[in-house]
Amino acid sequence: MYDRIKGFRDFYPEEMAAHREVIDTVEETARNYGFREIATPAMEPTEMYVDKSGEEIVEELYSFEDKGGRDVALTPELTPTVARMVVAKQQELPKPIKWFSTRPFWRYEEPQQGRFREFYQTNIDVFGSSDPSADAEVMAVAVDVLTDLGLTSDDFDFRVSHRDILSGLLESFEADVDVQDAIRAVDKRAKIDEEEYMDLLTDAGLNYGQADNFDEMLHTDADELGTLAEMTGSDDVAAAVENLEAVLSAAEDFGVREYCTVSLTTARGLDYYTGVVFECFDSTGEVSRSVFGGGRYDDLIEGFGGQPTPAVGFAPGVMNSTLPLLLQRAGVWPAEELSTDYYLLQVGDTRSVAARIARDLRESGHVVETDVAGRSFGAQMGYADSINAETVVIVGEQDLENDEVTVKDMESGDQTTAPVDEFPGDRERPTYDDFA
Amino acid sequence: MYDRIKGFRDFYPEEMAAHREVIDTVEETARNYGFREIATPAMEPTEMYVDKSGEEIVEELYSFEDKGGRDVALTPELTPTVARMVVAKQQELPKPIKWFSTRPFWRYEEPQQGRFREFYQTNIDVFGSSDPSADAEVMAVAVDVLTDLGLTSDDFDFRVSHRDILSGLLESFEADVDVQDAIRAVDKRAKIDEEEYMDLLTDAGLNYGQADNFDEMLHTDADELGTLAEMTGSDDVAAAVENLEAVLSAAEDFGVREYCTVSLTTARGLDYYTGVVFECFDSTGEVSRSVFGGGRYDDLIEGFGGQPTPAVGFAPGVMNSTLPLLLQRAGVWPAEELSTDYYLLQVGDTRSVAARIARDLRESGHVVETDVAGRSFGAQMGYADSINAETVVIVGEQDLENDEVTVKDMESGDQTTAPVDEFPGDRERPTYDDFA
Repeated sequence: MYDRIKGFRDFYPEEMAAHREVIDTVEETARNYGFREIATPAMEPTEMYVDKSGEEIVEELYSFEDKGGRDVALTPELTPTVARMVVAKQQELPKPIKWFSTRPFWRYEEPQQGRFREFYQTNIDVFGSSDPSADAEVMAVAVDVLTDLGLTSDDFDFRVSHRDILSGLLESFEADVDVQDAIRAVDKRAKIDEEEYMDLLTDAGLNYGQADNFDEMLHTDADELGTLAEMTGSDDVAAAVENLEAVLSAAEDFGVREYCTVSLTTARGLDYYTGVVFECFDSTGEVSRSVFGGGRYDDLIEGFGGQPTPAVGFAPGVMNSTLPLLLQRAGVWPAEELSTDYYLLQVGDTRSVAARIARDLRESGHVVETDVAGRSFGAQMGYADSINAETVVIVGEQDLENDEVTVKDMESGDQTTAPVDEFPGDRERPTYDDFA
Repeated sequence: MYDRIKGFRDFYPEEMAAHREVIDTVEETARNYGFREIATPAMEPTEMYVDKSGEEIVEELYSFEDKGGRDVALTPELTPTVARMVVAKQQELPKPIKWFSTRPFWRYEEPQQGRFREFYQTNIDVFGSSDPSADAEVMAVAVDVLTDLGLTSDDFDFRVSHRDILSGLLESFEADVDVQDAIRAVDKRAKIDEEEYMDLLTDAGLNYGQADNFDEMLHTDADELGTLAEMTGSDDVAAAVENLEAVLSAAEDFGVREYCTVSLTTARGLDYYTGVVFECFDSTGEVSRSVFGGGRYDDLIEGFGGQPTPAVGFAPGVMNSTLPLLLQRAGVWPAEELSTDYYLLQVGDTRSVAARIARDLRESGHVVETDVAGRSFGAQMGYADSINAETVVIVGEQDLENDEVTVKDMESGDQTTAPVDEFPGDRERPTYDDFA
């Protein structure tokens, strides 16, 4: 007997049925906004990740040398891959490019609440528009995904921030600040104590007074963002605030502004974000890790050798991830059970009739099972029950002598007979009620 | 600029749309027969494959040592994984267990026609029934998959054979035969010349006369299989012929017997098959490699440390595989194009109205795009055309002064106006015709 690998999971049918419903909902939301499905390799050259994130990233990668001597890595995220794909067909693709895909990714990290070494994300991205309405559309998809899954604004905090406001504020100090380090400190803020946070900011180049001042500015209310530009006198901050307000105005048009909380203490850890960033949390904090995040990353495609191409996107984790935990916490996780429209129960040698009926019902798109194990009446009825069959059609030798079958409603237990030639007949979905 | 890895492919939206349609068809067929979706890890302990297939298999694996010192391999096929999963929950799972899943697999092989290092299969298996109707149900799903995809019996050869007939015939000779080697020779028969084939059979322990005799028996017609038992006097052959005939009789009941050709020269390469095996080929031979195969493998679960559990299944390749090639050859490959129900074209500052209409239409389940790039009328119309929008709704400042929008049918080019408050109104799918 073999064990599965640590950090990996098997999904049996009941659990998978719930996950499939979640994935279908997420994908349908993306499709309805005109995002188009793509499919991508599970493996890329390791250097693609090293070039983007530095040599340290290798520690988190499933990387190895393949039998042809290539240094390859299992994809830990989709962004570098889609960047590569955009660059490869940059001229021919109509803009904006709107793509989605659902697939597993792999990272060699220590498993914890909602984190596995294999996890599934739906990546949703727009390439080729720097317009604030592109940011807002991505945010609208993100919020719609959450509400389409049954969550309400009480269940989640959707925090919106802007990288250029953070960097503009940092650069407005008379200090030699490592902006990326300081932003990483902001990203860690909620997970560390205040002293450690202040140390990180001073390590990044601010003095304590500046760090304190900076942190205070991060708590500016949404309707007073304009004061940040005044206080700092920074054109960069003014432009970034204007951009954030334009995105929020578009979000208003798109019907999702009410879900958004401006929160400059939200920073997102990854270095490649360049504009609006957002992050979703469980409002109760019971799911302690971020549910998902996203934002604008305008420089990545150029960094991959392409024409300058603005980009914005996000990636909810749909399996082995925190989103399912939030749905469970909020009581909107889909039922983990099988559903079956019909079970054709054979008594005696009635397979050909049962098969004909099963075939007709399947042609109407129904889920139909029949006995393929030569089992007894009781065993078949137990099985039909275990797969939650709604209707059992009993095809018995004696009934057939009268050209009849028995139709049993499994919820009520009621049953009646129906003419075999009229089952299903012209009926799309015949049930007990049609013959009772 | 980075290259993707040899033997791996990117799927852009148009191509993916066609593949998605194929995958949806295959999965819906399986679902309608009551197969339930599972999801499985991309990685397993390497020893799982070595124990099953021998040390040579490592040459074809993407195997490596992970950062925790585990010898792991990317899954080259699903069967060992589902066997592991069945064993892990053998007691609690109701039988028969009917599972399907679609996902990528990886093998380090030389790419050729329809073969890539990363390929996607839908695996469809029944565990827990040795009844011939289980074999026949799997064959019925396989044939239905092909016909649901638009193929006819003229397009493919569906060849059915039986491992126990082959082994029974081989064992009936007065010779020390390596049955697996001889069956592998039969599997290779179509790809090698006759001399080489005969050499392989004699290497396996037959003399030339026996090899010749054996090959002749493999060409026995379907309605004369009974003669094989008589000729050899083998009870094993008699039982296997009876089993094959019972499977074909069930296939008749299930409506797919007419698609099946009995062909004992079909053997399937893998050692673990134990009963009925089948394989699908392009009837024109233009796609030279097997389209897919399957069969019964009753010993595998026990070999994985479980209770003896009969099993039968098959796995059509749905991407980077031969099935798409057959569909293309037969002219039933789905259109590779985007489809879009509505494009909301904004002229002037009309975003809030366009967004309201887009939202209403999306709520009815339509695919709706609108401008998120601040582009001109012409650029938007060009984009709407590139995504094959059926209807363009033009939301212009001037029309809005009259409380109207313009509805344009993109196929005919006809357009008319509609009251903005009635679009979409109560209509599920408003088009030009509703207002002309």
